[in-house]
Amino acid sequence: MEKQGLLYEGKAKRIYATDEAEVVWVEYKDSATAYNGEKKATISGKGRLNNEITSLLFDYLKSAGVESHFIEKLSSTEQLVKRVTIIPLEVVVRNIAAGSFSKRTGVEEGKLLKQPIVEFYYKNDDLGDPLLTLDHVLELELATEETVNDLKERAVYINTLLREYFLEREVKLVDFKLEFGMTAEGTIMLADEISPDTCRLWDSNTNEKLDKDVFRRDIGNLTEAYEQILARLGGSESCIK
Amino acid sequence: MEKQGLLYEGKAKRIYATDEAEVVWVEYKDSATAYNGEKKATISGKGRLNNEITSLLFDYLKSAGVESHFIEKLSSTEQLVKRVTIIPLEVVVRNIAAGSFSKRTGVEEGKLLKQPIVEFYYKNDDLGDPLLTLDHVLELELATEETVNDLKERAVYINTLLREYFLEREVKLVDFKLEFGMTAEGTIMLADEISPDTCRLWDSNTNEKLDKDVFRRDIGNLTEAYEQILARLGGSESCIK
Ligand SMILES: Nc1ncnc2c1ncn2[C@@H]1O[C@H](COP(=O)(O)OP(=O)(O)O)[C@@H](O)[C@H]1O
Ligand SMILES: Nc1ncnc2c1ncn2[C@@H]1O[C@H](COP(=O)(O)OP(=O)(O)O)[C@@H](O)[C@H]1O
Ligand SMILES: [Mg+2]
Ligand SMILES: [Mg+2]
Repeated sequence: MEKQGLLYEGKAKRIYATDEAEVVWVEYKDSATAYNGEKKATISGKGRLNNEITSLLFDYLKSAGVESHFIEKLSSTEQLVKRVTIIPLEVVVRNIAAGSFSKRTGVEEGKLLKQPIVEFYYKNDDLGDPLLTLDHVLELELATEETVNDLKERAVYINTLLREYFLEREVKLVDFKLEFGMTAEGTIMLADEISPDTCRLWDSNTNEKLDKDVFRRDIGNLTEAYEQILARLGGSESCIK
Repeated sequence: MEKQGLLYEGKAKRIYATDEAEVVWVEYKDSATAYNGEKKATISGKGRLNNEITSLLFDYLKSAGVESHFIEKLSSTEQLVKRVTIIPLEVVVRNIAAGSFSKRTGVEEGKLLKQPIVEFYYKNDDLGDPLLTLDHVLELELATEETVNDLKERAVYINTLLREYFLEREVKLVDFKLEFGMTAEGTIMLADEISPDTCRLWDSNTNEKLDKDVFRRDIGNLTEAYEQILARLGGSESCIK
């Protein structure tokens, strides 16, 4: 596979074309951003950690029957994935109240929710990624009702899988964000990344935060937290450090 | 009926007990507030206008079979209503994009929506009346799923009735907010008010705003706008001025 021109540079990754039309080359960057890009930093090692963790999690999901864009890890910071058109919805699943959910509803951070909650946010930096209802999604023609229901079902199943997987490793999966995309043939699949950048992960004994909140809230060392997660997932923590 | 002690003073109305346990006495105030109370003013005549308009609209809805808390108008600024426990949800119906919907979704103000959209906001000043999804409502135990669906159905029907009623009077019903409550016997009914404070109303020929946006955005004379609405509804505009 040959890496070709840069297609898109986001806040956390660069996407390159390859010599195969349906495959793109993803490079995880060392940049950390929060609050819609208002807070920024370069954190050496972060790209490697997110690439390693995402690769492990997509491999695990595949073994449990969940199709994703992930093809293979190429290096410590790179992976090959199927090219998709991203559906501009951030699908958030919550098990425990935290972050914007707590701010919105007044429910104290840390409260176990009665059942997992799935939310849809408009992936639109200009609008600040607002929460949408089904009616909003339909009005904006971001997806059909059928697709929204399908994404919700997939998200709930992925949550069931990941929640157990993390808990066996003494990590509480508090909440996380998924992105889905459509291939040129029209197949919808899980895409983007699943990493401590896109999940809230708390140590199941101490509730210590092992995710991007460490950076958002300046409460510790981000790479140490992410290394913890990688280690608990059985990843190769120090091989390229 | 005898007016007794003040039960509650809100931003727009005072609610008094009466000698009948199931009836309260509502007094419409001359105060205008916007942006969750950040912007305030006293506008002489506003209480009368909202009381007259709400009374006319609840009478009309009653004639079309929609039960509400409204019993009778007592004076130019007062009415008797059935006492209810308000369900802490602001039920918003939208026909045309405007206000927070346009801000949230990026849809230009004035665009006709493909179908009416019903939204639920948490009636909670401390939290700034946030938008909620069904899952949020259930988690917060503000209402059951059955009640949410019932409120949605009622809101859509009320919209159908009011939209036609206003259009016959050369007014576009852009959007509006409803509150529902439960009587001591457990009957859910429409409550609160329906007035230019709680509706967006545009002249159907010129799109001139004839509602609280005149105050929110400082673009004209509020009492003149509200008088316009009262006049078009056939109300007694100048009898007590
Ligand atoms: N398989 C894929 N094909 C095409 N684009 C993808 C794929 N997976 C993720 N993307 C997109 O790549 C972009 C870069 O990722 P990222 O740096 O996280 O961007 P952002 O700043 O939008 O979060 C994002 O728009 C993401 O949705
Ligand atoms: N029939 C009713 N019985 C009891 N309370 C009511 C009834 N109708 C409306 N209310 C409530 O009366 C209060 C006063 O109204 P308002 O001044 O508009 O208050 P707010 O500042 O909350 O908008 C509100 O909390 C409203 O929900
Ligand atoms: Mg991203
Ligand atoms: Mg009110």
